[in-house]
Amino acid sequence: MERIKGLVDAPFTPMKANGDVNLEPIPAYAAMLAGNGLKGVFVNGSSGEGYMLTSDERKALAEAWVKSAPKGFKVIVHVGSCCLRESVELAAHAKAIGAWGIGSMAPPFPKIGRVEELVLYCERIAAAAPELPFYYYHIPAFNGAFLPMVDFLKAVDGRIPNFAGIKYTFESLYEYNQCRLYAGGKFDMLHGQDETYLASLAQGGAEGGICGTTNYNGRVQVAIGEAWEQGDLERARELQNFSQEVINVICRYRGNIVGGKRIMKLIGLDLGPNRIPWRNLTDEEEASMKKELEAIGFFERCNII
Amino acid sequence: MERIKGLVDAPFTPMKANGDVNLEPIPAYAAMLAGNGLKGVFVNGSSGEGYMLTSDERKALAEAWVKSAPKGFKVIVHVGSCCLRESVELAAHAKAIGAWGIGSMAPPFPKIGRVEELVLYCERIAAAAPELPFYYYHIPAFNGAFLPMVDFLKAVDGRIPNFAGIKYTFESLYEYNQCRLYAGGKFDMLHGQDETYLASLAQGGAEGGICGTTNYNGRVQVAIGEAWEQGDLERARELQNFSQEVINVICRYRGNIVGGKRIMKLIGLDLGPNRIPWRNLTDEEEASMKKELEAIGFFERCNII
Amino acid sequence: MERIKGLVDAPFTPMKANGDVNLEPIPAYAAMLAGNGLKGVFVNGSSGEGYMLTSDERKALAEAWVKSAPKGFKVIVHVGSCCLRESVELAAHAKAIGAWGIGSMAPPFPKIGRVEELVLYCERIAAAAPELPFYYYHIPAFNGAFLPMVDFLKAVDGRIPNFAGIKYTFESLYEYNQCRLYAGGKFDMLHGQDETYLASLAQGGAEGGICGTTNYNGRVQVAIGEAWEQGDLERARELQNFSQEVINVICRYRGNIVGGKRIMKLIGLDLGPNRIPWRNLTDEEEASMKKELEAIGFFERCNII
Amino acid sequence: MERIKGLVDAPFTPMKANGDVNLEPIPAYAAMLAGNGLKGVFVNGSSGEGYMLTSDERKALAEAWVKSAPKGFKVIVHVGSCCLRESVELAAHAKAIGAWGIGSMAPPFPKIGRVEELVLYCERIAAAAPELPFYYYHIPAFNGAFLPMVDFLKAVDGRIPNFAGIKYTFESLYEYNQCRLYAGGKFDMLHGQDETYLASLAQGGAEGGICGTTNYNGRVQVAIGEAWEQGDLERARELQNFSQEVINVICRYRGNIVGGKRIMKLIGLDLGPNRIPWRNLTDEEEASMKKELEAIGFFERCNII
Repeated sequence: MERIKGLVDAPFTPMKANGDVNLEPIPAYAAMLAGNGLKGVFVNGSSGEGYMLTSDERKALAEAWVKSAPKGFKVIVHVGSCCLRESVELAAHAKAIGAWGIGSMAPPFPKIGRVEELVLYCERIAAAAPELPFYYYHIPAFNGAFLPMVDFLKAVDGRIPNFAGIKYTFESLYEYNQCRLYAGGKFDMLHGQDETYLASLAQGGAEGGICGTTNYNGRVQVAIGEAWEQGDLERARELQNFSQEVINVICRYRGNIVGGKRIMKLIGLDLGPNRIPWRNLTDEEEASMKKELEAIGFFERCNII
Repeated sequence: MERIKGLVDAPFTPMKANGDVNLEPIPAYAAMLAGNGLKGVFVNGSSGEGYMLTSDERKALAEAWVKSAPKGFKVIVHVGSCCLRESVELAAHAKAIGAWGIGSMAPPFPKIGRVEELVLYCERIAAAAPELPFYYYHIPAFNGAFLPMVDFLKAVDGRIPNFAGIKYTFESLYEYNQCRLYAGGKFDMLHGQDETYLASLAQGGAEGGICGTTNYNGRVQVAIGEAWEQGDLERARELQNFSQEVINVICRYRGNIVGGKRIMKLIGLDLGPNRIPWRNLTDEEEASMKKELEAIGFFERCNII
Repeated sequence: MERIKGLVDAPFTPMKANGDVNLEPIPAYAAMLAGNGLKGVFVNGSSGEGYMLTSDERKALAEAWVKSAPKGFKVIVHVGSCCLRESVELAAHAKAIGAWGIGSMAPPFPKIGRVEELVLYCERIAAAAPELPFYYYHIPAFNGAFLPMVDFLKAVDGRIPNFAGIKYTFESLYEYNQCRLYAGGKFDMLHGQDETYLASLAQGGAEGGICGTTNYNGRVQVAIGEAWEQGDLERARELQNFSQEVINVICRYRGNIVGGKRIMKLIGLDLGPNRIPWRNLTDEEEASMKKELEAIGFFERCNII
Repeated sequence: MERIKGLVDAPFTPMKANGDVNLEPIPAYAAMLAGNGLKGVFVNGSSGEGYMLTSDERKALAEAWVKSAPKGFKVIVHVGSCCLRESVELAAHAKAIGAWGIGSMAPPFPKIGRVEELVLYCERIAAAAPELPFYYYHIPAFNGAFLPMVDFLKAVDGRIPNFAGIKYTFESLYEYNQCRLYAGGKFDMLHGQDETYLASLAQGGAEGGICGTTNYNGRVQVAIGEAWEQGDLERARELQNFSQEVINVICRYRGNIVGGKRIMKLIGLDLGPNRIPWRNLTDEEEASMKKELEAIGFFERCNII
């Protein structure tokens, strides 16, 4: 199976002031991401408020991204939901519209407590789009599925034919590396924590990743990998430190999904509000966040619209 | 607002061997519950695998229960989902088909961390069926919403006009009692833990409850309340102890949703399998559970089909 | 073995302004507790900051309480520590000075993860004072030992000859009742949550308890049991509701160990400060707490010094 | 203040078959560690079962290590305990016997919930040995003190004069790096997770660390740093991967404290059993662990006695 090289972006879902999904900005959004060095998108994931969208909205978004994708730009559709039947339908739809791949996190309800349950769940979804690579999206802080990933790889290996790898959004670089080493590097381990990308490059030899902050800070994040590739450790560190500074700021503004989405407006691509139960930033909070970003020189280094 | 007196059942969702929802048993199911002393149903909740059903399936189930309900038998529809727009639609549908009330738990994703977020969420749903009583279903072990319920009552009081009360499925009888005492007993506090019903009657003066084990052990559970009412503490204790013995058994067979649903087959109302990621009991496990239930004399005291 | 009937108090440790242990108030303290209906003390437990005392201080306190105890007033010494050798020494000391019984919670470090580990730990301590009843103090919120207590009873039954029972400070009245029913009521289950005493009397038939708020609110807490005994449910409820109101207040002032200890000063028995890392109340906080207690009529119902 | 360069070992506490502390092996132990490239020891920490030793035992061990230390070999004494007075005494003792530095983790009881509480605790201990560098040992998985470390550095900066830095035993390389960058690198950030040392070198520029597996795998762990220093990334990765393989094995044998201590016997320096509540390995388990270690070639690469 083809491996993902470079960084894939997890886009926000553009919304109108009334909360309706807004497909209109997507072509410009896709072009912008490609122009800033991103290799594709992971649509309808946590950054995209995927769980908070109706099935029809998720399909419409997947279609819009596939249609808007520049040549070679990969569209991976997150199809996870609490309802397996819905996920199966979304997987088949992703295949039908020509997506490059699919992915799913563990359902947050009921809480997955055993590897076997997770395998049953992923197996059915993967089987609904057997020609597409399937990525498991490991983000236990969000759904409570704190399962050992090496055991999971052992369980799916030979059982889910189109299992491609894991989008690994968790703290343990030890486990990440053990997954990477599994079966001679059989699976594609996508790094999923923007703040430790350099650490992962050094220890784990990561080649690809899926990122949330690349929506606005993609040039810097991409450059970390390039500097590392070129053996320029000092530059890689400086870039990673800057990436962390940006993350320090958004952590004070409800994180990437809320604060990060609002940054898009500040760099010139207004994507509208978040859905309830997220609490949108007030105008005062936006102004304060802007000031903090200016103080670290963000607007000179951020994505170019 | 009318208070719920007595016990409301949280029904399982009947399914065919292939996993399709099966509406056919519902009239008999409703009659059976009423015949065993239950006062209504809380449809599409956790026992009903509500989060694992499609929107269309949830609507079909709600309709079937409303149509099948004997006179005076309350149908409360659980409309919670990760997608507020879906919940709003389900709430409006519940109103349209003539349900008695609606309810919602906190979404498991994104995890609710503040009372204000929960209020925003409930407010929108309740507003979609303003003529129906709205119950918040507090079950933090399932969705991580470990929020202080007295603070929540303060926040909704005067803000959500049709807020009726809480289905309280949590360990703290202290908090339960504090909620019951709030504003002179303004809200309807439905006890939601079958194993401590007697404790709740004594301390909290509970008048109503929503139960999962009443699907098969309803006669006993209802009798606890009657014995208490009659001042027969010894009998109430014996009944509650028996109720706990039944729960001891199902805890060894993946709990009420999996083990309990399988008991329905054993008492003569086969409701089919559970949905993935639940792991269904094997035939051996079923036989073993049956033996344990026989050993405690369950089949002489269980619901009469 | 003799059962504990009625309520045992968990005393605070009197300290001088400089933080030294102050043995001087103990005779008056013991007489006061007995005079307000308490049946004994559980010395050096969590209310007594036992883990924050040196071994020598713990011994001196145990001795002072044994010497000060009125006739028939039981002194149980908590001897738990992270260092089993220290606990063994404290147990032997308790025996030597004539304590009525001993107890221990699970060590918070290393975190106990298995029943077998807990049995090993308790077994050694109990064996150091084989003539005294040994109580396990179950308070998992403090030490992370969330172990199933029925399994623990099975494991110690027949193995620790002087195992007397459990001081049960946890939310699950279901598990409490299952422990009480174990082997025909073989073990002494001491209720350990002041706010749910009535619930426990009703469901579990609790006969004894160990309490933290009885230091200042003992008359009310004792009266709950008396009212229940006399079949006066309305009075029992009113008293339990008042007990909860007092607990509502201390929860706003860092709980019983900090806020409760300061109440002692307000009722006329100044016990001095708490040890670091506890943060003592400021004078402003004390005044504010006093006001809240006045507002609920606490000083008319509290312990008489 | 002098920075620690290179790796410091967290030694096990040698014990006799009856569980008594055994000081006899310590001179050979110290020489062995120095001979395998370690720069010092962190005595009576978690690997050393420090919390499970009496105060007298802790002092005797500290003295033995100071006496046995080769020239330039740093002895840092962990003095943390639940009882601040005991810790203060141990700190003064460490100073008196000529230890190089002291350290303390947060007490596991009462659980530290606020930065201010931790500062109060560390402040008093540090003040008892004001001429020695004081290291905070951050290991929240063991004591529940999940506090933000940058905030902690801000709080101690300018308040605890001999605060030297943090032994950081936690997953977040993001936070580790932020601590390292704090105030221009003012504090000494000692890496404390053997399995991610390379990641930390790359991202965080770690210069020193405190390790548990260096007791038996020190040559490899030290060589990771050397290879990195020399720019030999491939070798550093191979060494780190091997280090992880060793850790994979000990994770199957109750971790470093139990399994690791038993490895010492296998490499020729028998340090005896662990204390209760740790469950010692059976002979069968030891044999099985030995086989697994042979399979990865451990005995060719391990420390030389």
